[in-house]
Amino acid sequence: MALPFPIAGSKTELEEGGIFTPRFDRDGLIGCIVTDVRDGAVLMFAYMNEEALRLTLDTGIAHYWSRSRQSLWRKGDTSGQQQRLKEIRTDCDQDVLLLRVEPGGDGGACHTGRRSCFYRRLAPAPGSAGLIFDEG
Amino acid sequence: MALPFPIAGSKTELEEGGIFTPRFDRDGLIGCIVTDVRDGAVLMFAYMNEEALRLTLDTGIAHYWSRSRQSLWRKGDTSGQQQRLKEIRTDCDQDVLLLRVEPGGDGGACHTGRRSCFYRRLAPAPGSAGLIFDEG
Repeated sequence: MALPFPIAGSKTELEEGGIFTPRFDRDGLIGCIVTDVRDGAVLMFAYMNEEALRLTLDTGIAHYWSRSRQSLWRKGDTSGQQQRLKEIRTDCDQDVLLLRVEPGGDGGACHTGRRSCFYRRLAPAPGSAGLIFDEG
Repeated sequence: MALPFPIAGSKTELEEGGIFTPRFDRDGLIGCIVTDVRDGAVLMFAYMNEEALRLTLDTGIAHYWSRSRQSLWRKGDTSGQQQRLKEIRTDCDQDVLLLRVEPGGDGGACHTGRRSCFYRRLAPAPGSAGLIFDEG
């Protein structure tokens, strides 16, 4: 049984400390920005609970918590798009993670079949609600 | 008075549609990954409410919602690190945004004085709770 992560101390310890004290939200989750280590492209955004984070650190393979399915999820088990963890970072207040991964399978991450989940940009006109598809 | 954003329809419309239907969470917020348009570096993660998103789109300057201060926040008003919006993307289920910005002032984004909020990486040893400072 793995030890729980340490609890954050003061604001100074949180921001300037050398101890990882991830801050999970009221649902017990922490958001993860996932980028491709090869070119820095932002692939996806997902959540981890404490177990998913522990498994990710212990195995080097990204695990997440699916909010829609309410279950632990090792990405790639069905798609082949397993993510090998190359680096994990935390932000100043330790409530978001940044993962740099090497995606397996076809190198993509989005369940729609595209490489990145961010395959649409907003049309530039002010007030417009249009989306333009491009892999940008 | 600006019109509210359209409401998301079916899963197919959400994922494959050409209409921007941002999904705010139960607190009325949507998460934003912010990258530097010059080199793609991930600078920060913040939240927008509907007003902040509308102001961002209408002015081309990033506005956020501060959860700690519970107030609208035009980044850079005190730091000079104003963010000019170059592109905004949404993910497959439209509950996260990806902003590509041109940061003003010293080009940084973090309130600690560093360029990026992600200035610490986890030490590579399994089970370790250590953080290593580097600007990555």
